[in-house]
Amino acid sequence: MSARPQSGVGARTLRPDARSKVLGDAMYLADLRAPQMLHAAILPATIASARVTRLDTSGARGIPGVAEVLTSKDLGSVNRIGLIYDDQPLLVEDRVRMAGDRLALVAAESPELCREALEAIAVELEALPGVYDLSEALSPSAPKVHEAGNLVREFAVVRGDVAAARDGAEILLEQEFKIGGQEHAYLEPQGCLAVPDHDGGMRLFSSCQCPFYVRGAVSRALGLPLGKVRVVQSTTGGGFGGKEDYPNEVALCAALLSARTGRPVRLVLPRELDMQASTKRHGMLIHHRLYASADGRIRGVEIDILVDAGAYAGLSTVVAERANTSAVGPYAIDHLRVRTQVCYTNNLFGGPFRGFGAPQVTVAHECQMERLAKEVGLSPVQVRRLNAISPERPEFSTGERIESAERLSKVLDRVESLTRSKNAQAVAEAGDRFRWGTGVAVFIYGANLHHGGQPLDRGGALLHLQADGSVNVSIGVTEMGQGAFAASRAIAAEALGAPADAVHLTEVDTGLVTDSGPTVASRATLVAGNAILDAASQLRARLLPLAAELLGAAEKEVETGPGGFLAPGGRFVPFADVTALLYRRRIHPAALGWYRSADRIYDPATGQGQAYMFYTFGAHVTRVRVDTWTGKVDVTNIHAVHDIGRAIHPPALEGQVQGGAVQAMGWAIMEDLLLEEGRLKNPSFTDYLLPTAVDAPNVEMTFLEDPEPLGPFGARGIGEPSFIPGGAAIATAVGHALGIHVSELPLTPERVLRMLAREG
Amino acid sequence: MSARPQSGVGARTLRPDARSKVLGDAMYLADLRAPQMLHAAILPATIASARVTRLDTSGARGIPGVAEVLTSKDLGSVNRIGLIYDDQPLLVEDRVRMAGDRLALVAAESPELCREALEAIAVELEALPGVYDLSEALSPSAPKVHEAGNLVREFAVVRGDVAAARDGAEILLEQEFKIGGQEHAYLEPQGCLAVPDHDGGMRLFSSCQCPFYVRGAVSRALGLPLGKVRVVQSTTGGGFGGKEDYPNEVALCAALLSARTGRPVRLVLPRELDMQASTKRHGMLIHHRLYASADGRIRGVEIDILVDAGAYAGLSTVVAERANTSAVGPYAIDHLRVRTQVCYTNNLFGGPFRGFGAPQVTVAHECQMERLAKEVGLSPVQVRRLNAISPERPEFSTGERIESAERLSKVLDRVESLTRSKNAQAVAEAGDRFRWGTGVAVFIYGANLHHGGQPLDRGGALLHLQADGSVNVSIGVTEMGQGAFAASRAIAAEALGAPADAVHLTEVDTGLVTDSGPTVASRATLVAGNAILDAASQLRARLLPLAAELLGAAEKEVETGPGGFLAPGGRFVPFADVTALLYRRRIHPAALGWYRSADRIYDPATGQGQAYMFYTFGAHVTRVRVDTWTGKVDVTNIHAVHDIGRAIHPPALEGQVQGGAVQAMGWAIMEDLLLEEGRLKNPSFTDYLLPTAVDAPNVEMTFLEDPEPLGPFGARGIGEPSFIPGGAAIATAVGHALGIHVSELPLTPERVLRMLAREG
Repeated sequence: MSARPQSGVGARTLRPDARSKVLGDAMYLADLRAPQMLHAAILPATIASARVTRLDTSGARGIPGVAEVLTSKDLGSVNRIGLIYDDQPLLVEDRVRMAGDRLALVAAESPELCREALEAIAVELEALPGVYDLSEALSPSAPKVHEAGNLVREFAVVRGDVAAARDGAEILLEQEFKIGGQEHAYLEPQGCLAVPDHDGGMRLFSSCQCPFYVRGAVSRALGLPLGKVRVVQSTTGGGFGGKEDYPNEVALCAALLSARTGRPVRLVLPRELDMQASTKRHGMLIHHRLYASADGRIRGVEIDILVDAGAYAGLSTVVAERANTSAVGPYAIDHLRVRTQVCYTNNLFGGPFRGFGAPQVTVAHECQMERLAKEVGLSPVQVRRLNAISPERPEFSTGERIESAERLSKVLDRVESLTRSKNAQAVAEAGDRFRWGTGVAVFIYGANLHHGGQPLDRGGALLHLQADGSVNVSIGVTEMGQGAFAASRAIAAEALGAPADAVHLTEVDTGLVTDSGPTVASRATLVAGNAILDAASQLRARLLPLAAELLGAAEKEVETGPGGFLAPGGRFVPFADVTALLYRRRIHPAALGWYRSADRIYDPATGQGQAYMFYTFGAHVTRVRVDTWTGKVDVTNIHAVHDIGRAIHPPALEGQVQGGAVQAMGWAIMEDLLLEEGRLKNPSFTDYLLPTAVDAPNVEMTFLEDPEPLGPFGARGIGEPSFIPGGAAIATAVGHALGIHVSELPLTPERVLRMLAREG
Repeated sequence: MSARPQSGVGARTLRPDARSKVLGDAMYLADLRAPQMLHAAILPATIASARVTRLDTSGARGIPGVAEVLTSKDLGSVNRIGLIYDDQPLLVEDRVRMAGDRLALVAAESPELCREALEAIAVELEALPGVYDLSEALSPSAPKVHEAGNLVREFAVVRGDVAAARDGAEILLEQEFKIGGQEHAYLEPQGCLAVPDHDGGMRLFSSCQCPFYVRGAVSRALGLPLGKVRVVQSTTGGGFGGKEDYPNEVALCAALLSARTGRPVRLVLPRELDMQASTKRHGMLIHHRLYASADGRIRGVEIDILVDAGAYAGLSTVVAERANTSAVGPYAIDHLRVRTQVCYTNNLFGGPFRGFGAPQVTVAHECQMERLAKEVGLSPVQVRRLNAISPERPEFSTGERIESAERLSKVLDRVESLTRSKNAQAVAEAGDRFRWGTGVAVFIYGANLHHGGQPLDRGGALLHLQADGSVNVSIGVTEMGQGAFAASRAIAAEALGAPADAVHLTEVDTGLVTDSGPTVASRATLVAGNAILDAASQLRARLLPLAAELLGAAEKEVETGPGGFLAPGGRFVPFADVTALLYRRRIHPAALGWYRSADRIYDPATGQGQAYMFYTFGAHVTRVRVDTWTGKVDVTNIHAVHDIGRAIHPPALEGQVQGGAVQAMGWAIMEDLLLEEGRLKNPSFTDYLLPTAVDAPNVEMTFLEDPEPLGPFGARGIGEPSFIPGGAAIATAVGHALGIHVSELPLTPERVLRMLAREG
């Protein structure tokens, strides 16, 4: 057919959210206002482990214009907000467990009065010993962050006979990896506007990924039925996992103040507090032991992972479950033992972040593969090919057969061709001051929610055809900048035969769209797309007979084409003509779609079973230049290879891959959460170094398009995969350049110099 | 079964909108605000017929803080806003045709600056002759309001041989009726807030009955697809037809100012301008000739109606069509000729108003029946029974057989028993100063939209079940105080087996609910109810197997009961338990419903065919006391008899009947639109006398409940029927009290004294 589609799947249309964001017209939470609105602020604890000996709010309560001051004493059982474990208060009760813990909330007529009120609250904290070193968290002598001890939960993968594998191995590679956390650094800080509804309910505008989570939290806290709490996702300036669960806490603060005052309340976190208190990528300690035969074949692996949850469990166990399942990488290993322990500390609050535990373990398994390659004298690709999951050896760590294993070999083919060039060699420059190296990282990604999250894995879509051919699409997953709306628009246009610019996406409003679970785990396109397809097929069944009538054709001859309907002989009728007739006939112009993944079976005790819906693969081949005098790493080129199924909206896909690669680079070489007894020493975008456009490397991309049978038009999801290999490929590249084994991230100049001094 | 239902259909639950309205928490348009919002104002013409000789806005444009000033010169073709006829500009072009015509629009930072800007616009108008007397409108010598003349359109009913009937008649009763208009007097004036949307579209908050009309008008004016214009109905403080079409004009003003400035713009009409410029109940002149035999049987009727449209057609032709069809009342008349002429004048702008042309013609046909009764010596009920549509003579003026004709005889039975009492006699009191009388008015009401409006007669509903058993219901018809939400909630609760207080209605948002046509013609309960039933039946099919499982019963044994599901042996499972299981199973928790009336055939040239979907009947029996010294009429008691089908929400039903009766009383005896060359001399609630609670008579009610096969749970609709007989029953009562023939409305003291002087 013709070259590039102009509309629908694969077309390079302008993203629906692009213009307003570029021009500054988009209304973020801080731009929203409601009549009679109060401003809110939080009084945070400034030390990470303490007992509260005084918290006197009387001074603040007396200030004219201060409408409400809340402490835990005002809240009762509503104060307990732990999502999975009952370990977290909204407001500190008697004990501070992390810097940034909320001591009190205030609502006042202006931000200035809020500040005045915070200053008028008298606080005395008695410092207590804390847990700041993850490696010590489970030591019997460690202070207890919570009464029951510092182990939150343990996950395992148990398979084959790893002791026998170890005993029979010719090569034993043992390495401790120390992987740092990361700040989400969304451009828009956390925020919520709560507005009392005229029917006794509440409406909340939330900068978030998961409005249905926010609804649930507020419903429980206010004792309101779900149907009376409406959460509207406001234009959200980035999430990356940081707006999965944490927006609940922000919303609860605003909602409780609003319920107490009967007035709208807006809370937007100052950047410093947001960085200190909201969730972060988990720091991990990974003890990795690899057992192989002399030919480079892996016989077994033992991995022990410590995950730093911070002071509250939050969703750390869910993140850890992915790390646990992904720990061995895309390799077929018969004997293995993985143990993943989630630990309380008084450090930063760990939570969901693009990759969800997989990037950290990918650093470990890929650095170990690199070492194995060297050890046995194989190329990086050869050693991976030798051990990769394949149609012949299709079993993943979970014991499942990976049906799509042949796609991994296509990824490796591409990696091979990329690493074969001269430019992939390790070379020295300028009298050995600068060293060049190329790193490879390959990964497997279990698409969509892990088995443990499957109860949430369903979603809906609502499509309304208008008489003029425009289409309103409402979905239950959110746009946070990742391109969910662009992809959904392309899918709806393609499925209906409508022009893409006739399709309009609506922000998520929990009162009007179906609970579609969280917008996480690269599932937005999958969930929304499949639900849209279901709705579109119902509408197409109503449109086709009308199109046939207008075309003078038999219904079975008519096909959906770009922007309308086609019949043999080049006959064409525009989409809008058919919807106009639909309206004249008073045929139902709307349809609901539904998506639900097939039930899976999985045993958490052994990590065996169907962990994920399907699997996808990818790799980065990354070129770095390391300054051996200063330790500074420059990433000059990243080639991302992704098994994407189908490119639904190419610009959004490319944006995800570029963004994921650059964000992973930031994590790997620049971003450093500097902690001093749990306090962040660099809680600003001035002191916490982030890659800017100037730092961005050249990102090249190869997309392998084997359609996914379970995905809409074959799509697989790219949000998390785009990030996962990034850090690992930089780590192996730096190792390649310097001839050392990298075992720490981030590779800041200080660390690089330290490693060089140790190993180089 | 048990006495009174606690939930669902027939239960006396609190209306969902009651609390916030009573407590003042509801947010009306004037309470809404948006960031960066501008205020808007209109410069109205102060005379009704003129040429614009100067319109200089330069003074206003120069004022700091004035963001925009618009005149017709800025608008081009967008200025043409006629709904059916292209006769109306948004802003005056060269000719003023009514007082209140818009000369210019301003948007400024504050209401004060708006006023300043209006004052700074230099206007010169050269007065032209105008048409102020409806009876002269079609005279060849009348000034032309529009070039093509003053006849907008003519409707007819032609049936049998009326000339022969006239020739053969023994009794000829000829009367000219002069019926006044009425101000809607909604508590909340017209208003709209337009907010530019971040995707280049626009969102409007509108106090209106018909958000889909507003969407269409704004879409056309701004050249935006329907899918990019979202209209949210704000809490609407009354409509009564006055917010059917006129909100388009208000919205267009706000939308154009918003589009030009790129900022939110709010326009709320000052009461004085609202009363002068917005639509009113039509004044009519009705020339009624009744031909009967000596025994009181009507042989034929000739009716000529002049309808005062004011300067623009608006929806006057649609209103006139109902007047035309309803002109003969609920009587089987073989020979008739009705001619209804809609005329341009320079008076007030005629438009939809509760009853939609039927109240005026009911005054005429019922006063004529009263006269006929006297003439032939029959009681009011006897003469009506003799001529009423009945199973033996079931044909209406349209020629259709009225299948439900036997219900009219039940209405007449009830009227008979009410008029038989001693208290229904005409008596004199206090030396003849005060005269008591009882009036009867019987009517037929064609339910839902006339054939001409049938393309709009469809509607949707969206039901979402939540995990905790709450239910969100979105419908496409609006709540404006009439009880649409209360009725919809009862229907949803009943159909699902949910507790009524678990059901939550959502305001209409055109981006999210299906275009359900206008909320007019007493169709809200019918349309929303049937659509809800369709959606609920889909959800019930998913819930019943789960309920059966929880009850340990076979699915076919399970029934929907109040608040849950029932199985034999008194087994019961609460609704919320079943929805919780639905969520655990990930079964689709939402459904869309659709309603569409059957196609009808009708010939506008003869008025013959199926004009309406079905018919309903009713009557008022009204007691008055007339002070013959002052002319003041006191209505002491109204007994309303309505063939309602089924009481869905009894308090809302009773509220409608009481409100309709009192509003009709206001029209009949108090409300007087005092015009001086098209200018309203009493444009305020101080000078335009309205009934207050103190003036309200005792309203008693008889509801005849024969379920309507086409209505949800048998309901028929009551909004307009509640008003229709009110004026006629008061007119006949005053006639009865004074022994005269009433032929004018309103029966203000002055008119009563004049009639007494003429006839008494």
